[in-house]
Amino acid sequence: MESELKAKIRVLLFTDEKCFGPGIRQLLDAVEIHGSLRKAAISMEMAYSKAWKMVKNCEKHLGFPLLISTTGGKNGGGAVLTDDAKKFLSAYEEYCAELETFGAKLLYEKFEFYNK
Amino acid sequence: MESELKAKIRVLLFTDEKCFGPGIRQLLDAVEIHGSLRKAAISMEMAYSKAWKMVKNCEKHLGFPLLISTTGGKNGGGAVLTDDAKKFLSAYEEYCAELETFGAKLLYEKFEFYNK
Repeated sequence: MESELKAKIRVLLFTDEKCFGPGIRQLLDAVEIHGSLRKAAISMEMAYSKAWKMVKNCEKHLGFPLLISTTGGKNGGGAVLTDDAKKFLSAYEEYCAELETFGAKLLYEKFEFYNK
Repeated sequence: MESELKAKIRVLLFTDEKCFGPGIRQLLDAVEIHGSLRKAAISMEMAYSKAWKMVKNCEKHLGFPLLISTTGGKNGGGAVLTDDAKKFLSAYEEYCAELETFGAKLLYEKFEFYNK
């Protein structure tokens, strides 16, 4: 009983069905970095078809588009996040961060007997 | 965008490795109800060998025994939770419940724009 307890908190958001979680969060973050869904998928070692399905499925349940296709330029065929997607992603990230902070404090309180 | 957003929060506890989560919680709850690991496993449609491994693995990482074998009586060969296990399980359940409550309030606050 020497090692201190830590909590990993995973949040899935639902409307009617599962619609948003750590996987799509990571994918959208990667689209923001790479400016393309294809490159984002590659960076996560995920098949492009799977990434595309994740986006479409999430859009369907959330009720708004997540990506805008960009064309032209030397790296034509990219994608950027819609304003709605940015807002939702940022709300999810804030939500997870605040839950983690609260969760870490609560863990200490509830499991004080164990960490002694 | 008619359906309201809900969050499902999953908590895994770690010492050095993963040691406690929804699976072992459900199994220990079932042992309390059925008074036997074998019956608990059956109630969850889980192989007894898998349930036994889950318990042993969890005990190893937590550093204390979870179950005491009981013998005798007409249903001999049962098991009950140790006091340490009861204390830990109850701390985990309280932890998850309070996190859920906080999480539901926070969800409303962070995603108010979406639920409108």
